[in-house]
Amino acid sequence: METIIGITAGIFTSISMVPQLLKVLKEKDVENLSPYMIAILLTGVSLWVVYGFMLHEWPIILSNLFSVLVNATLLVCYFLFREQ
Amino acid sequence: METIIGITAGIFTSISMVPQLLKVLKEKDVENLSPYMIAILLTGVSLWVVYGFMLHEWPIILSNLFSVLVNATLLVCYFLFREQ
Repeated sequence: METIIGITAGIFTSISMVPQLLKVLKEKDVENLSPYMIAILLTGVSLWVVYGFMLHEWPIILSNLFSVLVNATLLVCYFLFREQ
Repeated sequence: METIIGITAGIFTSISMVPQLLKVLKEKDVENLSPYMIAILLTGVSLWVVYGFMLHEWPIILSNLFSVLVNATLLVCYFLFREQ
């Protein structure tokens, strides 16, 4: 039961940035997004990947590697689409 | 060493939404924010709190309870400040 709750929680937190990324890709506008939020989150999920490798825990590695990908893309979009 | 990396990762991912919330509170504008992102993240961190209680793991409970608070406030702000 804990495992099901844990896996569901992990899936939700991992995919949460996907709708934000899709919205940014569609609207090409990032004015109200905080670049600090994206940068801190990217640092955090990258450290989770390192942690996962240290413990050889594939669920931690894979879910956070997915988040790294989404947040890195979001950060690139931020710098592409921000007002000059 | 793993513990230090894990705690640092947890701190980064937990506090990442704080600059976003401060930006929203300051600018009172949420046009480029995805409400799905906030709602999915809020569901995810709430489930992590449940998971933490099941395992009696206080670091999981406390860090995610903090995220619940930040994201719930962000969601309230979203509905307060969105364009009518």
